[in-house]
Amino acid sequence: MWLLLRMDTPPDGILKALRSLAIEAQAHRLGNRWAIELQGNGYLPEMLLRYEEVERILPDDTPYPLVQRWNGSVELPSWKRREKLLWIAGPCSVENKAQLLSLAQDLKSLGVHVLRGGAFKARTSPYSFQGLGEVALEWLLEARSLIGLPICVEILSEKHLPLYEQVDILQIGARNMDHYWLLKEVGSTQKPVLLKRNPQATIEEWLLAAEYLLLHGSPWVLLCERGIRTFERSTRYMLDVGAIPVVQRQTLLPVIADPSHAAGHWRYVEPLALSAVGAGAEGLIVEVHPDPLQAQSDSAQQLTLDQFILLYQRANALFSARLGHLTQPV
Amino acid sequence: MWLLLRMDTPPDGILKALRSLAIEAQAHRLGNRWAIELQGNGYLPEMLLRYEEVERILPDDTPYPLVQRWNGSVELPSWKRREKLLWIAGPCSVENKAQLLSLAQDLKSLGVHVLRGGAFKARTSPYSFQGLGEVALEWLLEARSLIGLPICVEILSEKHLPLYEQVDILQIGARNMDHYWLLKEVGSTQKPVLLKRNPQATIEEWLLAAEYLLLHGSPWVLLCERGIRTFERSTRYMLDVGAIPVVQRQTLLPVIADPSHAAGHWRYVEPLALSAVGAGAEGLIVEVHPDPLQAQSDSAQQLTLDQFILLYQRANALFSARLGHLTQPV
Amino acid sequence: MWLLLRMDTPPDGILKALRSLAIEAQAHRLGNRWAIELQGNGYLPEMLLRYEEVERILPDDTPYPLVQRWNGSVELPSWKRREKLLWIAGPCSVENKAQLLSLAQDLKSLGVHVLRGGAFKARTSPYSFQGLGEVALEWLLEARSLIGLPICVEILSEKHLPLYEQVDILQIGARNMDHYWLLKEVGSTQKPVLLKRNPQATIEEWLLAAEYLLLHGSPWVLLCERGIRTFERSTRYMLDVGAIPVVQRQTLLPVIADPSHAAGHWRYVEPLALSAVGAGAEGLIVEVHPDPLQAQSDSAQQLTLDQFILLYQRANALFSARLGHLTQPV
Amino acid sequence: MWLLLRMDTPPDGILKALRSLAIEAQAHRLGNRWAIELQGNGYLPEMLLRYEEVERILPDDTPYPLVQRWNGSVELPSWKRREKLLWIAGPCSVENKAQLLSLAQDLKSLGVHVLRGGAFKARTSPYSFQGLGEVALEWLLEARSLIGLPICVEILSEKHLPLYEQVDILQIGARNMDHYWLLKEVGSTQKPVLLKRNPQATIEEWLLAAEYLLLHGSPWVLLCERGIRTFERSTRYMLDVGAIPVVQRQTLLPVIADPSHAAGHWRYVEPLALSAVGAGAEGLIVEVHPDPLQAQSDSAQQLTLDQFILLYQRANALFSARLGHLTQPV
Repeated sequence: MWLLLRMDTPPDGILKALRSLAIEAQAHRLGNRWAIELQGNGYLPEMLLRYEEVERILPDDTPYPLVQRWNGSVELPSWKRREKLLWIAGPCSVENKAQLLSLAQDLKSLGVHVLRGGAFKARTSPYSFQGLGEVALEWLLEARSLIGLPICVEILSEKHLPLYEQVDILQIGARNMDHYWLLKEVGSTQKPVLLKRNPQATIEEWLLAAEYLLLHGSPWVLLCERGIRTFERSTRYMLDVGAIPVVQRQTLLPVIADPSHAAGHWRYVEPLALSAVGAGAEGLIVEVHPDPLQAQSDSAQQLTLDQFILLYQRANALFSARLGHLTQPV
Repeated sequence: MWLLLRMDTPPDGILKALRSLAIEAQAHRLGNRWAIELQGNGYLPEMLLRYEEVERILPDDTPYPLVQRWNGSVELPSWKRREKLLWIAGPCSVENKAQLLSLAQDLKSLGVHVLRGGAFKARTSPYSFQGLGEVALEWLLEARSLIGLPICVEILSEKHLPLYEQVDILQIGARNMDHYWLLKEVGSTQKPVLLKRNPQATIEEWLLAAEYLLLHGSPWVLLCERGIRTFERSTRYMLDVGAIPVVQRQTLLPVIADPSHAAGHWRYVEPLALSAVGAGAEGLIVEVHPDPLQAQSDSAQQLTLDQFILLYQRANALFSARLGHLTQPV
Repeated sequence: MWLLLRMDTPPDGILKALRSLAIEAQAHRLGNRWAIELQGNGYLPEMLLRYEEVERILPDDTPYPLVQRWNGSVELPSWKRREKLLWIAGPCSVENKAQLLSLAQDLKSLGVHVLRGGAFKARTSPYSFQGLGEVALEWLLEARSLIGLPICVEILSEKHLPLYEQVDILQIGARNMDHYWLLKEVGSTQKPVLLKRNPQATIEEWLLAAEYLLLHGSPWVLLCERGIRTFERSTRYMLDVGAIPVVQRQTLLPVIADPSHAAGHWRYVEPLALSAVGAGAEGLIVEVHPDPLQAQSDSAQQLTLDQFILLYQRANALFSARLGHLTQPV
Repeated sequence: MWLLLRMDTPPDGILKALRSLAIEAQAHRLGNRWAIELQGNGYLPEMLLRYEEVERILPDDTPYPLVQRWNGSVELPSWKRREKLLWIAGPCSVENKAQLLSLAQDLKSLGVHVLRGGAFKARTSPYSFQGLGEVALEWLLEARSLIGLPICVEILSEKHLPLYEQVDILQIGARNMDHYWLLKEVGSTQKPVLLKRNPQATIEEWLLAAEYLLLHGSPWVLLCERGIRTFERSTRYMLDVGAIPVVQRQTLLPVIADPSHAAGHWRYVEPLALSAVGAGAEGLIVEVHPDPLQAQSDSAQQLTLDQFILLYQRANALFSARLGHLTQPV
């Protein structure tokens, strides 16, 4: 590990401090600065930030080696990476069994690869509908076995994990991306995970959350950009399309986008979805409801099946136009 | 409940839709707008946002009635609300029993009201120190009984709750403010809670998290402003001092500030602490470590005991200067 | 104009105050709220915000009537709105006459509709290159007459206006969007304007800046989204792709995007450009330099001609794929 | 100048490129990184950012040497730096001569050091009151000579400069902080300047704007923090109190705060003002109006004279409490 000192700052104080902590260190001059080489350990960096001489710590490794070096495969029936756009769709909350089965059948016929649906919900207000919970999970599993579509369901609490044994992809919602004790347990299931970015997370923090998952056992992680919080509130969140190519420079893990939560209103779901495809997203997760006016959550942003079919066609056309020119997603 | 329609938008479509859902509604004209009066229920509002005619929904009640109407008392030994500044202090992570006991004794002698200390930690990187866990909790409880100082400890997982039975104040950290399933279980313990604001949370979302706690059983909640995330990174987070008087207009629950996490560096802890007192904070929670250079987390921002003593005197002096002029905190 | 009062707030105080200012006002009950109808004038709203009873002011008109009702045509040689993507390209700064003429010829041959180039520059540091100024403008005008490509040049000061008489499109840069005294003078020239969004401006503020231009005489305004400032700094700014369809719901003025300044690095210009096309942008303004390594400003983000040719083809292909499905841009 | 390359990145490519541009460069190894020493010039840095090998450029000097090394004195009648809090107060807009003279007399009697007042205004909407302009300036100058209070007036356009010859302190408003051509001309007048921070400016950008002023001739600059734009809108802007001590570490130029524009409502002006004093501000600029209900701009946030008197006493008391403990402002 190296420390880079501020201009015109002598290294003596920090060398003395390091040595008093029994840390070997050696100073090298770089013009009007000093660089200090030292033998690091886990908690050195924070300590060094107390010293105002230190402008920057240069670690010997990336902060997320597993994410950076991941080179596995993403196994999903009927989806081929780099040939097709990945589609994950379904209702915000599962509210009705017959409705869910019928929608799942429609989505599968259309070509959707994974069914999404909410069982336990994370709601800003304690007075909002909190999801049907266990029974919704049962209906999702029934849809899975009857229709043969893999399912992706958000997990909100370590305590719920036993109920998720047959779920194909565990979803970590935006609000739980930094709930590290949940990440550890979810990783330990060795299931694939869809990891949304927290609306306040930097890209580095998001990738570190993925590192938690890979370190604890997840075979692969779908990184899902879903909008960050900014001063502009005309859309619910601001989709960070630039994050897509930036992340693709850091990792081979697939990056998808969630235009529904970024938009917050059905009218803006399609332009944001097409925008994400333009930026290089490999897939989309979209909220679709047979009758959004009756939906008990996210009513404003869910697409009707007809709206979704249009989006499906347009996004696939854009994805093909993009692929025609590119040998790789970025 | 009332809906306010956009200018020059006829109410017919939405009235028809409401009636088709068997919702009684009546339109009133307001100049070149219409207002619709209706009998609401839990999930009406979201549905109505699908209609672009609707500019605004006017609910019949505040979103957080318990928070707004709370009028209880905050019982803490040796602290009198509106007479003294509330002090909560201690190390980021508990790392060593002897050190903790000695620090706790020093803090108590100085006049600190509550000891804080981390047992399980929420760290951005899976490779960082994750806290000593259960043993750290045991040492904190020992400090509590030996020295007679109430303790405040962050709780990160529903699964850990049984270990926290004797903790005086449960802390919900900034990252868990929107971990609603944890809030429900923490509320059910009927213990007081220190609730930090998530760095991406609006004030309304923060107060809704407090509503979860009160609704599930918490007798009182210390609302703790600790900085939000903005584009400026010269301090770790940006302390939203304006939030203090804004929240005080909404609720009688006490509002305190955490200058340590907002600052991110010991040098800025004092100005931010004094700033919060100026804005009307009723208390401060500060990270103090007997030897910050040796700390295994937040080394850069923890105060030494000497630095803390100066801060303690200065903040109390400012609090008195402020109180001298004011008949109430705001 | 109507005022909407907070729940359970009596209208008496505000009615009395309004009458003391000789303003006619009448109160109407809306359930547990009151609405007050009044005869407004220019500076009423701000005054009313002093009264905490007022939750919301409902004006009788949109804040930007000219922007909302604009229904003119955008006349640019060789570009047909809704049939082709509009291309504006050229170097960040004009640095060399021969280089400029040669690049302009290449861009015109490719199909670019407007040449951009910087004469006077707005630089964050006083020690950075500030543009060649007047001579650069002369070379641009020479390129315009020799090659027959309209030019778009940023104007930074009212004092420079006389030099811009033959410029086809005056550009208001992001930093000057809220320089209202410049907007007034630029509008008075009756020339078309390219108006970039300030990185801190809400959409409403951006459209109000366009209102200034139309009110003072501009025949049309190209609204240009170029990224806002957020906490994420992996791209230079964050392209607000959602703003594109949001603005298109408010006005028929064309909306284009500037991927170069949002990206900040050539590598991310293409994904951001394609993303903007996906979101529905009608055009792109892109920095292109024959030899970016030699460029005296924005070296990192300018495309080489070869990179631009690839982008040109790909963005046009995406635009066609999008148009194939849509009867209108949004 | 030094370049620091990314881990495990060979220096060959960049060395070759530098040499092809006739730049002397030499590579040094730092563990698994390379550092390159080179002879820089003005526009090297941007070019180097095209090379992805370059992680960081280490300049040989601070970006704002004049700001950093400034060590002059701030001459204002009746104010002694580090002994008293500096007070600048007056109406948002000057609307009436008698009212202005009477208010100026009251402020002077109270102990205010500088009178502020708006002549030309920068308004978000073209339909808002734009200031009385020249006549308002005349009244301000009359107040200055009759009452003997220095005046501070915002300057919005280079064209207006001749009217400001007798103004004591030229104010650069938040919106014009990055209007560099105005900064150059304002600096050339060799008058002191009050420089507000743009709500989207980083601290570095703010100090670079001050560098423009010092470089072009300003003898001193009052740096004024007035709130940045974030997602939280319960106050108009978010006062960045942390910026105060951060800036004080970089420069000896005085830092003051504007609680009025940050608050946006009179009720929050006092807590924000006291908060700024707690953080170490050396002065306050506050909007005061004899009858805010009649004010033609910023009505909601202006204090009445009575409210201002209370604030004046309380802020001075806090400033004294703070000074009592400190030998220097920070």
